[in-house]
Amino acid sequence: MRTCLDCIPCFFKQALEAARIAGADDATQRRILNEVARVLPDFRLEASPPEMARIIYRIVRDVTGVEDPYRNIKERSNRYALGIYDELIRIRDQGKDRMRTAVELAIAGNIIDYGVKNTLDVRREIEKILSEENRIIRHEESRFFQLENFREALSRAQTILYLGDNAGETVFDRVLLEEILRQYPEKEMIFAVKDQPAINDALMKDALDCGIQTVARVVSSGSDAPGTLLPLCSESFQKIFRNADMVISKGQGNFETLSGVERPVFFLLLAKCPVIANHIGCRVGDVILWYHTIEEEHEE
Amino acid sequence: MRTCLDCIPCFFKQALEAARIAGADDATQRRILNEVARVLPDFRLEASPPEMARIIYRIVRDVTGVEDPYRNIKERSNRYALGIYDELIRIRDQGKDRMRTAVELAIAGNIIDYGVKNTLDVRREIEKILSEENRIIRHEESRFFQLENFREALSRAQTILYLGDNAGETVFDRVLLEEILRQYPEKEMIFAVKDQPAINDALMKDALDCGIQTVARVVSSGSDAPGTLLPLCSESFQKIFRNADMVISKGQGNFETLSGVERPVFFLLLAKCPVIANHIGCRVGDVILWYHTIEEEHEE
Repeated sequence: MRTCLDCIPCFFKQALEAARIAGADDATQRRILNEVARVLPDFRLEASPPEMARIIYRIVRDVTGVEDPYRNIKERSNRYALGIYDELIRIRDQGKDRMRTAVELAIAGNIIDYGVKNTLDVRREIEKILSEENRIIRHEESRFFQLENFREALSRAQTILYLGDNAGETVFDRVLLEEILRQYPEKEMIFAVKDQPAINDALMKDALDCGIQTVARVVSSGSDAPGTLLPLCSESFQKIFRNADMVISKGQGNFETLSGVERPVFFLLLAKCPVIANHIGCRVGDVILWYHTIEEEHEE
Repeated sequence: MRTCLDCIPCFFKQALEAARIAGADDATQRRILNEVARVLPDFRLEASPPEMARIIYRIVRDVTGVEDPYRNIKERSNRYALGIYDELIRIRDQGKDRMRTAVELAIAGNIIDYGVKNTLDVRREIEKILSEENRIIRHEESRFFQLENFREALSRAQTILYLGDNAGETVFDRVLLEEILRQYPEKEMIFAVKDQPAINDALMKDALDCGIQTVARVVSSGSDAPGTLLPLCSESFQKIFRNADMVISKGQGNFETLSGVERPVFFLLLAKCPVIANHIGCRVGDVILWYHTIEEEHEE
């Protein structure tokens, strides 16, 4: 997905937010914004937004000297999500259709962002997503929630690569991966994390803290991009990506960077921003399970 | 009021919006954003946001060659507001306290922005602002709604300068000015407009279209700033500003540029943006009648 002009004001917003989270004073925040302004004209809009985000967060790191500004936030998210793990399991196992509920919970976990203030917000979001009303809407607009294709691909795949997103959210991913393993104990599951700090995305440590190693082999993408920019990923990761029978991609960053990729991918995400909602053709806030096939891409 | 770092993302948003309203294609929109990025590092944050806005809208004009991108929008706003003029008069004259209602209506007119979609929005906003509940809140938080000081200043002043804001909104200003003249027929009223296009701010033509000349002498600020940047105003305007017994300033742009001025000013505005609400100490959406005195400024 290419960068939209509307992303440009948002880049400055993200830079300012990251600068503040890194503890920069006013003068340093200004320096960071000026540096973003300096590199902006050279940025090609054909690239996806996370490519610019990666440049921005590098500037923040270089100017502030803080290697991982979101470290505390990520640890808080992990602790918070682990604290509701038992509750998530209960919700999943009470559902008539456990796989469906597990998928919905995994997508709901996408709201564990550093913006989320309290457990109440998350519980409310989960309730909203799982409500009968919203399930009916998803059933009616099933092109945005291709659960049957997902089930079918699961049943046929041997190796499944799951591209993680934020720290904390990984606990919700685990709830889904556990259900997949319960139904298909013979599957080989691989969970990918970022190699170096990328906003609040899960690193190896976060994935392990969230217990994902109990259900999957954890690998690094080899990159610090907040998404999956294949040319920047390690060769070993690229090989896994190419050879996996099924790829499940989580969150906006992975969607933005892989929406045009030449292999089938299941994108699970909450459409949080208007540019992405517009690209998909859905509304902001929608729960998306999008089956990207190669044929489809050629139609674009 | 100095520029906040949070204004910087917003500058790019405004530039993009103005570029689109001027009919620029994607490549031209990008050129405009790049040009804003180029001049940004030289912008001093000690200056007020409208100083940067002025630079941005000049870039839009220079790059697109469109002298007054908001011309159609302004004319639509004028027509729309004139269409509800009789209704506004009825509302004002039914109120127990006509001056109070007139002031509230004038402030409500501040939502006639190019963002407003339909008359329903405006009617809803008027109802909200005039509701008993909101009046009680204003009464309790009277430091943000200094109506008694306003009445007292009106009774004592001979020459009153009223600094206009958006096109269309001028009809709402007229409703207030008519009430002032009804209560004090001997006052000399002066209504100031921008000299050249400044976003959707009223120019001389707009003020005349809205009939403000029936209640006030209309003068130009001599500037194209979307606010009142005194050093850029004509000498004759500066003289009027200095010598007026009372200055009534409308909208955010005038507030941002005059909040530290060394003379008393009554600021009438809707606090539409978080930076301004934060500066004032109120909430976004609040109806503000702020009496700025010189002593107060020295305390800051």
